[in-house]
Amino acid sequence: MKTYLDCIPCFFRQAITAGRVTGADDARMKAILDEVARMIPELPLEMPPPLIADSMYRRIRHLTREPDPYLALKRESIETALALLPAMRHHMRQSSDPLMTAIRVAIAGNVIDVGVHKEYDIERDLYRILEQEFAILDYAPFVEHLSRARSVLYLGDNAGESVFDRLLIEAMGKPVTYAVRSAPVLNDQTVEDAIASGLDQVARIIESGSTAPATILSQCTPEFLELFENADLVISKGQGNYEGLSEVDRPVFFFLKAKCSVIASDLGVPEDSIVMKAINA
Amino acid sequence: MKTYLDCIPCFFRQAITAGRVTGADDARMKAILDEVARMIPELPLEMPPPLIADSMYRRIRHLTREPDPYLALKRESIETALALLPAMRHHMRQSSDPLMTAIRVAIAGNVIDVGVHKEYDIERDLYRILEQEFAILDYAPFVEHLSRARSVLYLGDNAGESVFDRLLIEAMGKPVTYAVRSAPVLNDQTVEDAIASGLDQVARIIESGSTAPATILSQCTPEFLELFENADLVISKGQGNYEGLSEVDRPVFFFLKAKCSVIASDLGVPEDSIVMKAINA
Repeated sequence: MKTYLDCIPCFFRQAITAGRVTGADDARMKAILDEVARMIPELPLEMPPPLIADSMYRRIRHLTREPDPYLALKRESIETALALLPAMRHHMRQSSDPLMTAIRVAIAGNVIDVGVHKEYDIERDLYRILEQEFAILDYAPFVEHLSRARSVLYLGDNAGESVFDRLLIEAMGKPVTYAVRSAPVLNDQTVEDAIASGLDQVARIIESGSTAPATILSQCTPEFLELFENADLVISKGQGNYEGLSEVDRPVFFFLKAKCSVIASDLGVPEDSIVMKAINA
Repeated sequence: MKTYLDCIPCFFRQAITAGRVTGADDARMKAILDEVARMIPELPLEMPPPLIADSMYRRIRHLTREPDPYLALKRESIETALALLPAMRHHMRQSSDPLMTAIRVAIAGNVIDVGVHKEYDIERDLYRILEQEFAILDYAPFVEHLSRARSVLYLGDNAGESVFDRLLIEAMGKPVTYAVRSAPVLNDQTVEDAIASGLDQVARIIESGSTAPATILSQCTPEFLELFENADLVISKGQGNYEGLSEVDRPVFFFLKAKCSVIASDLGVPEDSIVMKAINA
Protein backbone atom coordinates (compact mmCIF):
# COMPACT_ATOMS: atom_id res chain seq x y z
CA MET A 1 0.00 0.00 0.00
CA LYS A 2 1.25 3.48 -0.80
CA THR A 3 1.53 6.22 1.78
CA TYR A 4 -1.54 8.46 1.83
CA LEU A 5 -1.37 12.15 2.73
CA ASP A 6 -3.30 11.45 5.93
CA CYS A 7 -0.47 9.14 7.04
CA ILE A 8 1.82 12.17 7.42
CA PRO A 9 0.17 13.81 10.47
CA CYS A 10 -0.13 10.28 11.85
CA PHE A 11 3.67 9.75 11.70
CA PHE A 12 4.09 12.78 13.93
CA ARG A 13 1.36 11.61 16.28
CA GLN A 14 3.03 8.20 16.52
CA ALA A 15 6.42 9.79 17.15
CA ILE A 16 4.94 11.82 20.02
CA THR A 17 3.35 8.69 21.51
CA ALA A 18 6.55 6.66 21.23
CA GLY A 19 8.71 9.49 22.58
CA ARG A 20 6.41 9.94 25.58
CA VAL A 21 6.57 6.21 26.38
CA THR A 22 10.34 6.60 26.82
CA GLY A 23 9.81 9.60 29.11
CA ALA A 24 11.69 11.95 26.74
CA ASP A 25 11.51 15.61 27.76
CA ASP A 26 10.14 18.33 25.48
CA ALA A 27 13.55 19.25 24.03
CA ARG A 28 14.28 15.65 23.07
CA MET A 29 10.73 15.23 21.82
CA LYS A 30 11.16 18.29 19.59
CA ALA A 31 14.42 16.83 18.27
CA ILE A 32 12.54 13.62 17.42
CA LEU A 33 9.79 15.54 15.60
CA ASP A 34 12.41 17.61 13.75
CA GLU A 35 14.00 14.37 12.50
CA VAL A 36 10.63 13.10 11.34
CA ALA A 37 9.98 16.45 9.62
CA ARG A 38 13.31 16.23 7.79
CA MET A 39 12.31 12.81 6.45
CA ILE A 40 9.01 13.98 4.93
CA PRO A 41 10.34 15.82 1.84
CA GLU A 42 12.60 12.83 1.10
CA LEU A 43 9.80 10.30 1.05
CA PRO A 44 7.84 9.44 -2.08
CA LEU A 45 4.17 8.64 -1.47
CA GLU A 46 4.71 5.41 -3.43
CA MET A 47 6.62 4.01 -0.43
CA PRO A 48 4.55 1.91 2.04
CA PRO A 49 3.95 3.72 5.35
CA PRO A 50 5.71 1.11 7.54
CA LEU A 51 8.98 1.66 5.70
CA ILE A 52 8.82 5.30 6.73
CA ALA A 53 7.77 4.22 10.22
CA ASP A 54 10.83 1.95 10.31
CA SER A 55 13.23 4.88 9.78
CA MET A 56 11.24 6.95 12.24
CA TYR A 57 11.26 4.38 15.04
CA ARG A 58 14.99 3.74 14.46
CA ARG A 59 15.69 7.41 15.04
CA ILE A 60 13.45 7.47 18.08
CA ARG A 61 15.28 4.47 19.55
CA HIS A 62 18.58 6.17 18.81
CA LEU A 63 17.59 9.58 20.22
CA THR A 64 15.96 8.17 23.34
CA ARG A 65 18.60 5.40 23.79
CA GLU A 66 15.67 3.08 24.47
CA PRO A 67 15.93 -0.08 22.33
CA ASP A 68 12.42 -1.38 23.08
CA PRO A 69 10.13 1.38 24.38
CA TYR A 70 7.05 -0.84 24.43
CA LEU A 71 8.66 -3.82 26.22
CA ALA A 72 6.63 -3.48 29.43
CA LEU A 73 3.40 -2.97 27.51
CA LYS A 74 4.12 -5.97 25.27
CA ARG A 75 4.68 -8.20 28.31
CA GLU A 76 1.49 -6.94 29.91
CA SER A 77 -0.53 -7.57 26.72
CA ILE A 78 0.83 -11.12 26.53
CA GLU A 79 -0.10 -11.76 30.18
CA THR A 80 -3.61 -10.44 29.65
CA ALA A 81 -4.07 -12.51 26.51
CA LEU A 82 -2.69 -15.66 28.18
CA ALA A 83 -5.26 -15.21 30.96
CA LEU A 84 -8.03 -15.06 28.35
CA LEU A 85 -6.72 -17.99 26.28
CA PRO A 86 -8.55 -20.82 28.13
CA ALA A 87 -11.92 -19.06 27.70
CA MET A 88 -11.22 -18.50 24.01
CA ARG A 89 -10.14 -22.14 23.55
CA HIS A 90 -13.36 -23.25 25.22
CA HIS A 91 -15.33 -20.89 22.97
CA MET A 92 -13.63 -22.35 19.91
CA ARG A 93 -14.28 -25.96 20.94
CA GLN A 94 -17.96 -25.24 21.57
CA SER A 95 -18.32 -23.62 18.17
CA SER A 96 -20.03 -25.31 15.22
CA ASP A 97 -17.11 -24.04 13.10
CA PRO A 98 -13.97 -24.04 15.27
CA LEU A 99 -11.73 -22.82 12.41
CA MET A 100 -13.94 -19.80 11.80
CA THR A 101 -14.07 -19.04 15.52
CA ALA A 102 -10.29 -19.33 15.77
CA ILE A 103 -9.93 -16.85 12.90
CA ARG A 104 -12.28 -14.44 14.67
CA VAL A 105 -10.31 -14.75 17.91
CA ALA A 106 -7.05 -14.16 16.04
CA ILE A 107 -8.47 -11.08 14.32
CA ALA A 108 -9.98 -9.83 17.57
CA GLY A 109 -6.49 -9.97 19.12
CA ASN A 110 -5.43 -7.45 16.48
CA VAL A 111 -7.09 -4.65 18.51
CA ILE A 112 -3.92 -4.69 20.64
CA ASP A 113 -2.06 -1.98 18.76
CA VAL A 114 -0.21 1.08 20.01
CA GLY A 115 0.43 2.49 16.52
CA VAL A 116 -3.20 3.40 16.06
CA HIS A 117 -4.68 6.30 18.00
CA LYS A 118 -7.40 4.24 19.64
CA GLU A 119 -8.21 2.98 23.05
CA TYR A 120 -8.84 -0.70 23.37
CA ASP A 121 -9.98 -3.14 26.01
CA ILE A 122 -8.80 -6.61 25.03
CA GLU A 123 -11.53 -8.55 26.83
CA ARG A 124 -14.45 -6.32 25.80
CA ASP A 125 -13.25 -6.02 22.19
CA LEU A 126 -12.60 -9.75 21.95
CA TYR A 127 -16.19 -10.65 22.75
CA ARG A 128 -17.53 -7.89 20.53
CA ILE A 129 -15.50 -9.01 17.51
CA LEU A 130 -16.55 -12.64 18.02
CA GLU A 131 -20.05 -11.46 17.02
CA GLN A 132 -19.10 -8.81 14.42
CA GLU A 133 -19.98 -9.28 10.73
CA PHE A 134 -17.01 -9.40 8.35
CA ALA A 135 -16.78 -6.53 5.84
CA ILE A 136 -14.76 -8.81 3.51
CA LEU A 137 -15.01 -12.57 4.02
CA ASP A 138 -12.98 -14.73 1.64
CA TYR A 139 -13.55 -17.80 3.78
CA ALA A 140 -14.28 -20.37 1.04
CA PRO A 141 -10.98 -19.84 -0.81
CA PHE A 142 -9.17 -19.88 2.52
CA VAL A 143 -10.66 -23.25 3.49
CA GLU A 144 -9.83 -24.60 0.07
CA HIS A 145 -6.21 -23.38 0.14
CA LEU A 146 -5.81 -24.66 3.68
CA SER A 147 -7.13 -28.11 2.86
CA ARG A 148 -4.49 -28.51 0.14
CA ALA A 149 -1.64 -26.89 2.10
CA ARG A 150 1.27 -28.92 3.44
CA SER A 151 2.94 -25.84 4.89
CA VAL A 152 1.70 -22.53 6.22
CA LEU A 153 3.65 -19.30 6.60
CA TYR A 154 1.96 -17.19 9.27
CA LEU A 155 3.06 -13.54 9.50
CA GLY A 156 2.57 -12.38 13.07
CA ASP A 157 1.80 -8.84 14.13
CA ASN A 158 1.53 -7.49 17.66
CA ALA A 159 2.57 -8.91 21.03
CA GLY A 160 -0.53 -10.13 22.86
CA GLU A 161 -2.45 -10.79 19.66
CA SER A 162 0.22 -13.47 19.22
CA VAL A 163 -1.32 -15.55 22.02
CA PHE A 164 -4.56 -15.86 20.06
CA ASP A 165 -2.69 -16.78 16.88
CA ARG A 166 -1.83 -19.99 18.72
CA LEU A 167 -5.50 -21.04 18.68
CA LEU A 168 -5.72 -20.57 14.93
CA ILE A 169 -2.50 -22.53 14.41
CA GLU A 170 -3.95 -25.36 16.51
CA ALA A 171 -7.24 -25.22 14.59
CA MET A 172 -5.51 -25.40 11.21
CA GLY A 173 -3.57 -28.56 12.15
CA LYS A 174 -0.78 -27.96 9.62
CA PRO A 175 2.97 -27.36 10.04
CA VAL A 176 3.33 -23.62 10.56
CA THR A 177 6.29 -21.27 10.32
CA TYR A 178 5.55 -18.14 12.31
CA ALA A 179 7.45 -15.01 11.23
CA VAL A 180 8.13 -12.01 13.45
CA ARG A 181 10.08 -8.74 13.18
CA SER A 182 13.87 -8.71 13.41
CA ALA A 183 13.96 -5.76 15.82
CA PRO A 184 11.61 -4.28 18.43
CA VAL A 185 9.35 -1.75 16.73
CA LEU A 186 6.14 -0.44 18.29
CA ASN A 187 4.46 -3.34 20.10
CA ASP A 188 5.17 -5.75 17.24
CA GLN A 189 6.45 -9.15 18.24
CA THR A 190 10.08 -10.15 18.33
CA VAL A 191 11.19 -13.77 18.71
CA GLU A 192 11.23 -13.32 22.51
CA ASP A 193 7.65 -12.04 22.50
CA ALA A 194 6.52 -14.96 20.31
CA ILE A 195 8.13 -17.43 22.72
CA ALA A 196 6.57 -15.65 25.72
CA SER A 197 3.24 -16.06 23.91
CA GLY A 198 3.75 -19.84 23.71
CA LEU A 199 4.07 -19.95 19.94
CA ASP A 200 7.22 -22.06 20.07
CA GLN A 201 4.98 -24.91 21.26
CA VAL A 202 2.92 -24.93 18.05
CA ALA A 203 5.11 -23.43 15.31
CA ARG A 204 8.63 -22.83 14.13
CA ILE A 205 9.42 -19.18 14.85
CA ILE A 206 11.62 -17.20 12.47
CA GLU A 207 12.60 -13.57 12.02
CA SER A 208 11.47 -12.13 8.70
CA GLY A 209 14.43 -9.78 8.47
CA SER A 210 12.10 -6.80 8.48
CA THR A 211 12.61 -4.18 11.16
CA ALA A 212 9.59 -2.16 10.03
CA PRO A 213 6.24 -2.65 11.79
CA ALA A 214 5.31 -4.74 8.73
CA THR A 215 6.68 -7.34 6.34
CA ILE A 216 8.72 -5.35 3.83
CA LEU A 217 10.09 -7.86 1.33
CA SER A 218 13.08 -5.70 0.37
CA GLN A 219 14.24 -6.01 4.00
CA CYS A 220 13.61 -9.76 4.35
CA THR A 221 16.18 -12.51 4.69
CA PRO A 222 16.80 -15.03 1.87
CA GLU A 223 15.41 -17.75 4.17
CA PHE A 224 12.18 -15.83 4.67
CA LEU A 225 11.86 -14.95 0.99
CA GLU A 226 12.22 -18.61 0.01
CA LEU A 227 9.48 -19.54 2.48
CA PHE A 228 7.30 -16.67 1.30
CA GLU A 229 7.68 -17.80 -2.30
CA ASN A 230 7.12 -21.50 -1.68
CA ALA A 231 4.69 -21.77 1.24
CA ASP A 232 1.41 -23.36 0.21
CA LEU A 233 -0.50 -20.83 2.25
CA VAL A 234 0.47 -17.37 3.56
CA ILE A 235 -1.57 -15.78 6.34
CA SER A 236 -0.80 -12.12 7.01
CA LYS A 237 -2.03 -10.64 10.27
CA GLY A 238 -2.69 -6.99 10.90
CA GLN A 239 -2.48 -3.59 9.23
CA GLY A 240 1.31 -3.33 8.97
CA ASN A 241 1.69 -6.61 7.09
CA TYR A 242 -1.16 -5.56 4.78
CA GLU A 243 0.54 -2.22 4.10
CA GLY A 244 3.73 -4.03 3.15
CA LEU A 245 2.20 -6.87 1.11
CA SER A 246 -1.10 -5.66 -0.38
CA GLU A 247 0.42 -5.51 -3.86
CA VAL A 248 2.51 -8.71 -4.00
CA ASP A 249 1.74 -11.16 -6.81
CA ARG A 250 1.35 -14.37 -4.85
CA PRO A 251 -1.74 -15.56 -2.97
CA VAL A 252 -1.97 -14.05 0.52
CA PHE A 253 -4.79 -14.16 3.07
CA PHE A 254 -5.01 -10.95 5.08
CA PHE A 255 -6.68 -11.21 8.48
CA LEU A 256 -7.07 -7.83 10.14
CA LYS A 257 -9.18 -5.20 11.77
CA ALA A 258 -9.20 -1.94 9.76
CA LYS A 259 -8.37 0.36 12.66
CA CYS A 260 -7.41 3.53 10.78
CA SER A 261 -9.40 5.47 8.20
CA VAL A 262 -6.62 5.27 5.61
CA ILE A 263 -6.44 1.47 5.61
CA ALA A 264 -10.22 1.16 5.78
CA SER A 265 -10.46 3.37 2.70
CA ASP A 266 -7.70 1.45 0.89
CA LEU A 267 -9.65 -1.76 1.54
CA GLY A 268 -12.96 -0.09 0.66
CA VAL A 269 -14.56 -0.94 4.01
CA PRO A 270 -15.88 1.14 6.94
CA GLU A 271 -13.39 1.94 9.71
CA ASP A 272 -13.26 -0.72 12.44
CA SER A 273 -14.38 -3.45 10.05
CA ILE A 274 -12.98 -6.96 10.39
CA VAL A 275 -11.55 -8.34 7.21
CA MET A 276 -10.51 -11.70 5.80
CA LYS A 277 -9.26 -10.78 2.37
CA ALA A 278 -7.62 -13.03 -0.21
CA ILE A 279 -5.44 -11.71 -3.02
CA ASN A 280 -4.40 -13.76 -6.06
CA ALA A 281 -6.20 -16.78 -4.62
CA MET B 1 0.69 30.63 24.37
CA LYS B 2 3.64 28.50 23.30
CA THR B 3 3.44 25.77 20.69
CA TYR B 4 2.90 22.35 22.23
CA LEU B 5 4.25 19.14 20.67
CA ASP B 6 0.70 18.04 19.88
CA CYS B 7 0.28 21.15 17.70
CA ILE B 8 2.80 19.69 15.21
CA PRO B 9 0.67 16.81 13.83
CA CYS B 10 -2.22 19.32 13.84
CA PHE B 11 -0.34 21.71 11.49
CA PHE B 12 -0.09 18.88 8.95
CA ARG B 13 -3.74 17.97 9.41
CA GLN B 14 -4.74 21.62 8.88
CA ALA B 15 -2.53 21.83 5.79
CA ILE B 16 -4.25 18.76 4.32
CA THR B 17 -7.68 20.23 5.04
CA ALA B 18 -6.81 23.61 3.52
CA GLY B 19 -5.13 22.03 0.48
CA ARG B 20 -8.17 19.84 -0.17
CA VAL B 21 -10.50 22.84 0.00
CA THR B 22 -8.59 24.31 -2.95
CA GLY B 23 -8.92 21.05 -4.88
CA ALA B 24 -5.12 20.56 -5.00
CA ASP B 25 -4.06 17.18 -6.40
CA ASP B 26 -1.87 14.72 -4.47
CA ALA B 27 1.40 16.00 -5.96
CA ARG B 28 0.63 19.59 -4.98
CA MET B 29 -0.63 18.44 -1.60
CA LYS B 30 2.63 16.59 -1.02
CA ALA B 31 4.54 19.75 -1.98
CA ILE B 32 2.49 21.67 0.61
CA LEU B 33 3.22 19.10 3.33
CA ASP B 34 6.93 19.11 2.38
CA GLU B 35 6.98 22.88 2.89
CA VAL B 36 5.32 22.50 6.28
CA ALA B 37 7.82 19.77 7.18
CA ARG B 38 10.75 22.03 6.27
CA MET B 39 9.39 24.67 8.66
CA ILE B 40 9.23 22.38 11.70
CA PRO B 41 12.97 22.18 12.54
CA GLU B 42 13.16 25.99 12.23
CA LEU B 43 10.41 26.72 14.69
CA PRO B 44 11.04 27.14 18.40
CA LEU B 45 8.28 25.81 20.64
CA GLU B 46 8.26 29.21 22.35
CA MET B 47 6.53 30.67 19.28
CA PRO B 48 2.71 30.85 19.43
CA PRO B 49 1.07 28.29 17.11
CA PRO B 50 -0.80 30.85 14.94
CA LEU B 51 2.48 32.46 13.91
CA ILE B 52 3.53 29.12 12.47
CA ALA B 53 0.07 28.70 10.96
CA ASP B 54 0.51 32.13 9.35
CA SER B 55 3.63 31.01 7.44
CA MET B 56 1.94 27.75 6.62
CA TYR B 57 -1.22 29.28 5.19
CA ARG B 58 0.83 31.82 3.22
CA ARG B 59 2.66 28.98 1.53
CA ILE B 60 -0.58 27.11 0.89
CA ARG B 61 -2.10 30.22 -0.70
CA HIS B 62 1.04 30.65 -2.81
CA LEU B 63 1.28 26.99 -3.89
CA THR B 64 -2.42 26.65 -4.68
CA ARG B 65 -2.72 30.17 -6.14
CA GLU B 66 -5.92 30.47 -4.13
CA PRO B 67 -5.92 33.71 -2.10
CA ASP B 68 -8.98 32.86 0.02
CA PRO B 69 -9.67 29.10 0.04
CA TYR B 70 -12.48 29.38 2.59
CA LEU B 71 -14.35 32.27 0.92
CA ALA B 72 -17.44 30.24 -0.05
CA LEU B 73 -17.60 28.61 3.37
CA LYS B 74 -17.24 31.98 5.12
CA ARG B 75 -20.13 33.44 3.11
CA GLU B 76 -22.28 30.41 3.86
CA SER B 77 -21.50 30.64 7.60
CA ILE B 78 -22.45 34.32 7.61
CA GLU B 79 -25.75 33.58 5.82
CA THR B 80 -26.58 30.80 8.28
CA ALA B 81 -25.76 33.02 11.24
CA LEU B 82 -27.76 35.96 9.85
CA ALA B 83 -30.79 33.66 9.53
CA LEU B 84 -30.41 32.72 13.21
CA LEU B 85 -29.80 36.28 14.42
CA PRO B 86 -33.47 37.32 14.98
CA ALA B 87 -34.09 34.25 17.17
CA MET B 88 -30.93 34.97 19.15
CA ARG B 89 -31.88 38.63 19.56
CA HIS B 90 -35.31 37.57 20.81
CA HIS B 91 -33.65 35.11 23.19
CA MET B 92 -31.41 37.88 24.51
CA ARG B 93 -34.28 40.34 25.02
CA GLN B 94 -36.31 37.72 26.91
CA SER B 95 -33.38 36.98 29.19
CA SER B 96 -33.15 38.17 32.78
CA ASP B 97 -29.51 39.07 32.04
CA PRO B 98 -29.30 40.17 28.38
CA LEU B 99 -25.55 40.93 28.62
CA MET B 100 -24.78 37.43 29.86
CA THR B 101 -26.99 35.89 27.19
CA ALA B 102 -25.27 37.99 24.51
CA ILE B 103 -21.89 36.72 25.74
CA ARG B 104 -23.13 33.14 25.55
CA VAL B 105 -24.42 33.65 22.01
CA ALA B 106 -21.12 35.24 20.99
CA ILE B 107 -19.15 32.33 22.47
CA ALA B 108 -21.53 29.79 20.92
CA GLY B 109 -20.79 31.32 17.53
CA ASN B 110 -17.16 30.36 18.12
CA VAL B 111 -17.99 26.73 17.18
CA ILE B 112 -17.76 27.88 13.54
CA ASP B 113 -14.12 26.99 13.00
CA VAL B 114 -12.43 25.10 10.19
CA GLY B 115 -9.01 25.06 11.89
CA VAL B 116 -10.19 22.56 14.46
CA HIS B 117 -10.83 18.97 13.46
CA LYS B 118 -14.43 18.93 14.61
CA GLU B 119 -17.81 18.80 13.03
CA TYR B 120 -20.24 21.47 14.06
CA ASP B 121 -23.87 22.32 13.50
CA ILE B 122 -24.33 26.01 14.19
CA GLU B 123 -27.98 25.87 15.21
CA ARG B 124 -27.73 22.75 17.39
CA ASP B 125 -24.49 23.91 19.07
CA LEU B 126 -25.86 27.41 19.61
CA TYR B 127 -28.79 26.17 21.69
CA ARG B 128 -26.60 23.67 23.54
CA ILE B 129 -24.05 26.31 24.53
CA LEU B 130 -26.78 28.70 25.69
CA GLU B 131 -27.40 26.19 28.49
CA GLN B 132 -23.79 25.05 29.11
CA GLU B 133 -22.00 25.83 32.40
CA PHE B 134 -18.86 27.96 32.08
CA ALA B 135 -15.58 26.26 33.06
CA ILE B 136 -14.08 29.68 33.82
CA LEU B 137 -16.44 32.59 34.45
CA ASP B 138 -14.85 35.95 35.22
CA TYR B 139 -18.16 37.76 34.79
CA ALA B 140 -17.99 40.13 37.77
CA PRO B 141 -14.69 41.77 36.72
CA PHE B 142 -16.01 41.99 33.16
CA VAL B 143 -19.16 43.81 34.23
CA GLU B 144 -17.08 46.12 36.38
CA HIS B 145 -14.57 46.93 33.62
CA LEU B 146 -17.40 47.38 31.14
CA SER B 147 -19.31 49.79 33.37
CA ARG B 148 -16.24 52.06 33.58
CA ALA B 149 -15.23 51.73 29.93
CA ARG B 150 -15.63 54.57 27.46
CA SER B 151 -14.12 52.52 24.62
CA VAL B 152 -14.02 48.84 23.80
CA LEU B 153 -11.60 47.04 21.49
CA TYR B 154 -13.23 43.84 20.30
CA LEU B 155 -10.96 41.29 18.59
CA GLY B 156 -13.06 39.27 16.16
CA ASP B 157 -12.39 35.70 15.17
CA ASN B 158 -14.24 33.64 12.56
CA ALA B 159 -16.69 34.60 9.82
CA GLY B 160 -20.20 33.64 10.87
CA GLU B 161 -19.39 33.93 14.57
CA SER B 162 -19.02 37.60 13.67
CA VAL B 163 -22.80 37.93 13.21
CA PHE B 164 -23.36 37.01 16.85
CA ASP B 165 -20.67 39.42 18.02
CA ARG B 166 -23.08 42.10 16.86
CA LEU B 167 -25.55 41.15 19.60
CA LEU B 168 -22.88 41.49 22.28
CA ILE B 169 -21.80 44.85 20.89
CA GLU B 170 -25.43 46.03 21.03
CA ALA B 171 -25.83 44.68 24.57
CA MET B 172 -22.71 46.47 25.83
CA GLY B 173 -23.91 49.86 24.54
CA LYS B 174 -20.39 51.32 24.29
CA PRO B 175 -18.37 52.65 21.33
CA VAL B 176 -16.63 49.60 19.88
CA THR B 177 -13.70 49.21 17.53
CA TYR B 178 -13.85 45.76 15.95
CA ALA B 179 -10.52 44.35 14.73
CA VAL B 180 -10.14 41.69 12.05
CA ARG B 181 -7.26 40.01 10.19
CA SER B 182 -5.38 41.85 7.47
CA ALA B 183 -5.47 38.90 5.06
CA PRO B 184 -7.72 35.89 4.49
CA VAL B 185 -6.51 33.02 6.66
CA LEU B 186 -8.61 29.96 7.44
CA ASN B 187 -12.21 31.10 7.95
CA ASP B 188 -11.12 34.12 10.00
CA GLN B 189 -12.83 37.38 9.21
CA THR B 190 -11.46 40.01 6.90
CA VAL B 191 -12.95 43.51 6.68
CA GLU B 192 -15.27 42.32 3.87
CA ASP B 193 -16.53 39.45 6.02
CA ALA B 194 -17.14 41.79 8.97
CA ILE B 195 -19.15 44.11 6.74
CA ALA B 196 -21.12 41.18 5.30
CA SER B 197 -21.88 40.25 8.92
CA GLY B 198 -23.40 43.70 9.55
CA LEU B 199 -20.71 44.78 12.00
CA ASP B 200 -20.19 48.12 10.23
CA GLN B 201 -23.63 49.08 11.56
CA VAL B 202 -22.59 48.80 15.20
CA ALA B 203 -18.80 49.29 15.31
CA ARG B 204 -15.80 50.82 13.61
CA ILE B 205 -14.03 48.01 11.77
CA ILE B 206 -10.22 48.00 11.51
CA GLU B 207 -7.57 45.56 10.37
CA SER B 208 -5.20 44.54 13.14
CA GLY B 209 -2.27 44.13 10.80
CA SER B 210 -2.02 40.46 11.70
CA THR B 211 -2.22 37.94 8.89
CA ALA B 212 -2.06 34.99 11.28
CA PRO B 213 -5.28 33.31 12.45
CA ALA B 214 -4.77 35.27 15.68
CA THR B 215 -3.75 38.67 17.00
CA ILE B 216 0.05 38.59 16.92
CA LEU B 217 1.22 41.93 18.32
CA SER B 218 4.55 41.86 16.49
CA GLN B 219 2.56 41.90 13.23
CA CYS B 220 0.10 44.61 14.26
CA THR B 221 -0.16 48.13 12.86
CA PRO B 222 0.80 51.18 14.98
CA GLU B 223 -2.87 52.25 14.92
CA PHE B 224 -3.97 48.89 16.31
CA LEU B 225 -1.20 48.83 18.91
CA GLU B 226 -2.20 52.25 20.17
CA LEU B 227 -5.80 51.10 20.49
CA PHE B 228 -4.72 47.88 22.17
CA GLU B 229 -2.67 49.83 24.68
CA ASN B 230 -5.25 52.47 25.45
CA ALA B 231 -8.68 50.82 25.10
CA ASP B 232 -10.55 50.73 28.42
CA LEU B 233 -11.67 47.19 27.70
CA VAL B 234 -10.28 44.53 25.37
CA ILE B 235 -12.44 41.53 24.43
CA SER B 236 -10.64 38.71 22.64
CA LYS B 237 -12.75 36.13 20.86
CA GLY B 238 -11.67 32.60 20.05
CA GLN B 239 -8.72 30.27 20.34
CA GLY B 240 -6.38 32.00 17.90
CA ASN B 241 -6.56 35.35 19.69
CA TYR B 242 -6.01 33.55 22.99
CA GLU B 243 -2.94 31.79 21.60
CA GLY B 244 -1.51 35.11 20.50
CA LEU B 245 -2.38 37.17 23.58
CA SER B 246 -2.53 34.83 26.59
CA GLU B 247 0.71 36.26 27.97
CA VAL B 248 0.31 40.01 27.39
CA ASP B 249 0.56 42.30 30.41
CA ARG B 250 -2.60 44.35 30.00
CA PRO B 251 -6.14 43.35 31.04
CA VAL B 252 -7.86 41.19 28.41
CA PHE B 253 -11.14 39.28 28.55
CA PHE B 254 -10.99 36.04 26.58
CA PHE B 255 -14.31 34.65 25.38
CA LEU B 256 -13.94 31.26 23.74
CA LYS B 257 -14.85 27.65 23.46
CA ALA B 258 -11.86 25.36 24.16
CA LYS B 259 -12.20 23.22 21.07
CA CYS B 260 -8.82 21.49 21.03
CA SER B 261 -7.13 19.44 23.73
CA VAL B 262 -4.00 21.60 23.73
CA ILE B 263 -5.83 24.85 24.44
CA ALA B 264 -8.13 23.17 26.96
CA SER B 265 -5.06 21.89 28.78
CA ASP B 266 -3.33 25.30 28.61
CA LEU B 267 -6.45 26.84 30.19
CA GLY B 268 -6.76 23.96 32.68
CA VAL B 269 -10.33 23.12 31.61
CA PRO B 270 -11.96 20.07 29.98
CA GLU B 271 -12.08 20.02 26.18
CA ASP B 272 -15.22 21.70 24.75
CA SER B 273 -15.58 23.95 27.80
CA ILE B 274 -16.84 27.49 27.38
CA VAL B 275 -14.63 30.09 28.95
CA MET B 276 -14.82 33.73 29.98
CA LYS B 277 -11.35 34.37 31.32
CA ALA B 278 -9.87 37.65 32.52
CA ILE B 279 -6.14 38.28 32.74
CA ASN B 280 -4.54 41.20 34.61
CA ALA B 281 -8.03 42.46 35.51
